[in-house]
Amino acid sequence: MTKKREPVEYGSYLGLEKILNSQQCESAKFGEPAHDETLFIIIHQTYELWFKQILHELESVLQMFRNDYVDEKRIGTAVSRIGRVVEIQKVLIDQIRILETMTPLDFLEFRNFLTPASGFQSLQFRILEIKLGLKTDDRIRYSQQAYHQMFPDKSREMLHAAEAESSLFELLESWLERIPFLNMPDFNFGSVYRSAVEKLLEQERAAILEAGVTAEEETHRLKMVHATEKHFHSIFEPDAHNQLINEGRRRLSYDATMAGLLIHLYRDQPILHLPFRLLNLIVDMDELLSTWRYRHALMVLRMIGRKTGTGGSSGYNYLKSTAESHRVFADLFNLSTFLVPRSLLPDLPEKVQRNLGFYFSANDE
Amino acid sequence: MTKKREPVEYGSYLGLEKILNSQQCESAKFGEPAHDETLFIIIHQTYELWFKQILHELESVLQMFRNDYVDEKRIGTAVSRIGRVVEIQKVLIDQIRILETMTPLDFLEFRNFLTPASGFQSLQFRILEIKLGLKTDDRIRYSQQAYHQMFPDKSREMLHAAEAESSLFELLESWLERIPFLNMPDFNFGSVYRSAVEKLLEQERAAILEAGVTAEEETHRLKMVHATEKHFHSIFEPDAHNQLINEGRRRLSYDATMAGLLIHLYRDQPILHLPFRLLNLIVDMDELLSTWRYRHALMVLRMIGRKTGTGGSSGYNYLKSTAESHRVFADLFNLSTFLVPRSLLPDLPEKVQRNLGFYFSANDE
Amino acid sequence: MTKKREPVEYGSYLGLEKILNSQQCESAKFGEPAHDETLFIIIHQTYELWFKQILHELESVLQMFRNDYVDEKRIGTAVSRIGRVVEIQKVLIDQIRILETMTPLDFLEFRNFLTPASGFQSLQFRILEIKLGLKTDDRIRYSQQAYHQMFPDKSREMLHAAEAESSLFELLESWLERIPFLNMPDFNFGSVYRSAVEKLLEQERAAILEAGVTAEEETHRLKMVHATEKHFHSIFEPDAHNQLINEGRRRLSYDATMAGLLIHLYRDQPILHLPFRLLNLIVDMDELLSTWRYRHALMVLRMIGRKTGTGGSSGYNYLKSTAESHRVFADLFNLSTFLVPRSLLPDLPEKVQRNLGFYFSANDE
Amino acid sequence: MTKKREPVEYGSYLGLEKILNSQQCESAKFGEPAHDETLFIIIHQTYELWFKQILHELESVLQMFRNDYVDEKRIGTAVSRIGRVVEIQKVLIDQIRILETMTPLDFLEFRNFLTPASGFQSLQFRILEIKLGLKTDDRIRYSQQAYHQMFPDKSREMLHAAEAESSLFELLESWLERIPFLNMPDFNFGSVYRSAVEKLLEQERAAILEAGVTAEEETHRLKMVHATEKHFHSIFEPDAHNQLINEGRRRLSYDATMAGLLIHLYRDQPILHLPFRLLNLIVDMDELLSTWRYRHALMVLRMIGRKTGTGGSSGYNYLKSTAESHRVFADLFNLSTFLVPRSLLPDLPEKVQRNLGFYFSANDE
Repeated sequence: MTKKREPVEYGSYLGLEKILNSQQCESAKFGEPAHDETLFIIIHQTYELWFKQILHELESVLQMFRNDYVDEKRIGTAVSRIGRVVEIQKVLIDQIRILETMTPLDFLEFRNFLTPASGFQSLQFRILEIKLGLKTDDRIRYSQQAYHQMFPDKSREMLHAAEAESSLFELLESWLERIPFLNMPDFNFGSVYRSAVEKLLEQERAAILEAGVTAEEETHRLKMVHATEKHFHSIFEPDAHNQLINEGRRRLSYDATMAGLLIHLYRDQPILHLPFRLLNLIVDMDELLSTWRYRHALMVLRMIGRKTGTGGSSGYNYLKSTAESHRVFADLFNLSTFLVPRSLLPDLPEKVQRNLGFYFSANDE
Repeated sequence: MTKKREPVEYGSYLGLEKILNSQQCESAKFGEPAHDETLFIIIHQTYELWFKQILHELESVLQMFRNDYVDEKRIGTAVSRIGRVVEIQKVLIDQIRILETMTPLDFLEFRNFLTPASGFQSLQFRILEIKLGLKTDDRIRYSQQAYHQMFPDKSREMLHAAEAESSLFELLESWLERIPFLNMPDFNFGSVYRSAVEKLLEQERAAILEAGVTAEEETHRLKMVHATEKHFHSIFEPDAHNQLINEGRRRLSYDATMAGLLIHLYRDQPILHLPFRLLNLIVDMDELLSTWRYRHALMVLRMIGRKTGTGGSSGYNYLKSTAESHRVFADLFNLSTFLVPRSLLPDLPEKVQRNLGFYFSANDE
Repeated sequence: MTKKREPVEYGSYLGLEKILNSQQCESAKFGEPAHDETLFIIIHQTYELWFKQILHELESVLQMFRNDYVDEKRIGTAVSRIGRVVEIQKVLIDQIRILETMTPLDFLEFRNFLTPASGFQSLQFRILEIKLGLKTDDRIRYSQQAYHQMFPDKSREMLHAAEAESSLFELLESWLERIPFLNMPDFNFGSVYRSAVEKLLEQERAAILEAGVTAEEETHRLKMVHATEKHFHSIFEPDAHNQLINEGRRRLSYDATMAGLLIHLYRDQPILHLPFRLLNLIVDMDELLSTWRYRHALMVLRMIGRKTGTGGSSGYNYLKSTAESHRVFADLFNLSTFLVPRSLLPDLPEKVQRNLGFYFSANDE
Repeated sequence: MTKKREPVEYGSYLGLEKILNSQQCESAKFGEPAHDETLFIIIHQTYELWFKQILHELESVLQMFRNDYVDEKRIGTAVSRIGRVVEIQKVLIDQIRILETMTPLDFLEFRNFLTPASGFQSLQFRILEIKLGLKTDDRIRYSQQAYHQMFPDKSREMLHAAEAESSLFELLESWLERIPFLNMPDFNFGSVYRSAVEKLLEQERAAILEAGVTAEEETHRLKMVHATEKHFHSIFEPDAHNQLINEGRRRLSYDATMAGLLIHLYRDQPILHLPFRLLNLIVDMDELLSTWRYRHALMVLRMIGRKTGTGGSSGYNYLKSTAESHRVFADLFNLSTFLVPRSLLPDLPEKVQRNLGFYFSANDE
């Protein structure tokens, strides 16, 4: 800390003069002040402030993963920062309840003054989606236009710039691909995993045959195990996996997928513990974003029914469909499809365990 | 209070001996105790306890509305009890986070022991859906069977009995139909409302024409207003509304819909205020139930991926689709489509206002 | 709506240019940018935005109650607006979790740059306390100065102006005192209530004598009933009540207290239902404010331990003691002390009931 | 999994027959059924179920720490399980809102039937407090009796048995004392830390002198720094620390305290990261327990006012004072008092860093 500085005052430090004077109600401008427009403005402002914070955290995490080599010490920091994003998201969802204290009729008192402004024009939210890894081609078409068209020139440039950078999805994928434990001298994860799956399917079939259900039910369930087996096919055969990617049914590369499985299955190894927490938190983040979209859609439905949104969108239907379609990390959820009970997996060879542990450990003393 | 009674003891009052000894882990029976199975059992037990409480509240509300005449004094009680259901639902949603501290891999350690038990077999939850008004024919087909088949005989009888009774949807509909303010000597709500809508559409068209957007955008928006106008058609013409009912696109009767609109638009009249709160809370309840279903589906996806559920269901897809399809009170959300700003509506005639106010009022003294 | 207006754009409507550029980190100015300072700024900005919203709601409610005559139609609006404040408060509490993702050590990286700014200088929060009814003399001394001294001149004037106006406490008290049902021709609430209390105490004593506890325990409990009886004394004797007010142990006037009891005990009368909800929501608001203060104190404790706050306060101890001492509506909580089971109260005379009901009622048809 | 087993059915797996038939309302037994008693019973049952779950997690963590040597692999598991307890606690707090939908008057309808049962008699909650580390002598006296007297013989034995075992506090303390990094050949944490503190205090004094505040304010702040310095005295001198322990103002041993500081200050070292998370989660747990106690006290106050509790306790005052006094891990909060910015600390010597990192690291390849 350098020595000379002015005493800091609460209000000016926080820029309150600007922030607390930025609620200009359109309804008041037209001589019909609507009490609830203030709420409408303020809640959107808090959303935008939180989006800024999420982008701040996300950008710092992206920065860490942009290097070829990710220092293990930083994984803990990444875990903390994604953890913070998750806490923010919970508040974003809970805040919806505040807006819902505004009734549809109260909204109608000023809604027409807002045309054609729309939440769709939140630049920060679009950039957030891009930084997570949402690709333009995967976006649901909205109002029959390419989504960039909704933004003024300067913002459009920012969107293009964000699209040109690597996203969290891509950086995470490369990091997973580089994890060096998939194939070690004494331990081939691929073959260990494959024989565990084979044991599992055998057990499931046996269980169904002995479940004592009706013949019809038995056939039904055996078919489902067969379907499961087919699913597994793609995890044994890189080509099958790549085929799914080509068809747009998978996105995460084969090697990254295998690394994700390894991390889940051997998460208790000290070196894999924080990577496991990271994957888990990214799933939390994806889940909460999807939940927010769904809740948001329902809120819009109760607020304006099936009317057109102020920005001209088809409102509810558009928002609801993004809840599922705009999920970027669906493949991390899908990892669960391929997990097998750890009891089916061998312990790691002593030497490998040493490699995945700490240099120093209390029992070495 | 009668005079003689035994002193009550906390543990026996709450039946703790039974309740705290009802966690029998299947994994332990088979000699492979899984730490997390206790959580799995206990969280389901708390869900069932809360379902019981919701049914208790719901049944008491149904009872009130079963009478031809609903005492105004009871509306406040109904509002409080649905309000309590809403608070319980928030906890049901928040609880999901607890279950998500169990990882997919931890679940795998005991999942196979549970076949073919499934949350689908929660009798209380099915009865809850029925009491709200979900009809068997509107249920999403699950595991290719009529849903009753999933239950043992005794439970099936209880389901049929519940189906034979009037649901909240039906009782609410009749109550709305009976509300006596739709057509009073000095006030015909239908025609008052219609002319308000006409003014509104005229204003919206004017606003678009003066918005200064591109010709293409203008055309697009005018089309949307036209679509809105068409929507309104059904609210002016009972036959059009009934046609929508026949097509399965509406469920709430024409008169009940009009009464719902009236309650929204004149909610500040003392006599309509609690009915308004009641409608609003039922929308809350529907929204929270839908949110719970959606969150539950995501949780299942992260837990088992695309595998078959223990009960043989297709898991995630089934659960996700119920989030929208099993919403009973969608028509109450849709009311918002038909609202118009109160500024377009006339004040009530003095005499009608007196009818909707209190006998006693401070300024009469 | 007047006809000519510019199309509204999302970003400029919300003032985002100003809002999203108001995060000026002190640590960066001194060349030691601390990642977490952005969070610290943004969370305080969202708090201030929400304080603005709460003040907006509160001011509108105060406005309604400033009239001698409060239109019954407005009570519903007041209930909705206090209800909104309550929803905001829940988010204010939940937000603390976000700040707690910043560890004490992360805070240390920029804490020294902030001296002597302090959350104590939040002008809006002080005004909020004043508008609720916190009196300067009841404030806990902080940093050994009159609290106005912490503020610059202009702010100090605003504090004095707020103190000069009637607070929610005072307006609510007058409104309760004016409620016209305490003493009606056919119904004297005071005497009806008194005989109910007498029956109650008699029952409680009988219950203890028959509870079969040890002599020592019995004596202990009887003493407690005796203490309860003494409590009731103040509610029968206005002088005793006023004595408590003089001693600073009560604040709400005798008549207002009696009106509060009446509202609780006869809340099912349509005309009293919304007043009951209003009182209940004010209790919610007080409880949530106290909870927020307590949570905030714990958060400060974990963040800086027993160190001095940046503004020079004694931190935790100061904050913790405001949780209880700065509660304005404690007397509304205390009403519960004086409630008696409704079974001990007579039904209202037919004529009085008509006075408290609606002119129009379905069974009059 | 052994091969033969009966198909599991949802209801019997969860023991629903017992659980859903354990709501025996006392009010109904006496012919005066109170609608809300069901809620009162069910919410307490869910609390007890969650207490059971918390005890299950806590016991498994205690088990890990009972060994002289705590396998590093298990720390991740301990972190997850305490993390789960924290999620449960959030629900315990949120649930209070459900109970608060019961009004004081509704409670009065059945409250007298419950005498002398009291939440104080929750055996599981007492055991939970004991397992965390609350000592009998530190308990606030309640109803003028030793707390064991409230329980029947069998329960009293269980309390004594729990008291005879090591608590989480004690096991955590020993584990911290055994952490082998406090004094390593190339790194003496004690002296490194001491010189950092000295630099810090020097800086703080300098900052005050240059803050340009009034002389009075300056003196005030310098006194506070002096007080801080005195605080630090205890952390430099084991004897001073032990003196505080003797006076009952500290509980955590000197060595454990120093280890806690080390873990905070060097948390980014891979081997210290999970221990840091563990300490942080225990602070969360303590904070949430305290918050729950405070909220619970407020809820009781609004429910029964200043009346005696059903069990004869002084209700609100007792509960409120436990919020602070029964905090077991206050010393972990206090660690923040002794933290210094990491910029004042030296990097660890290369060799020490290798000891605290992983054997295997990507850049070693």
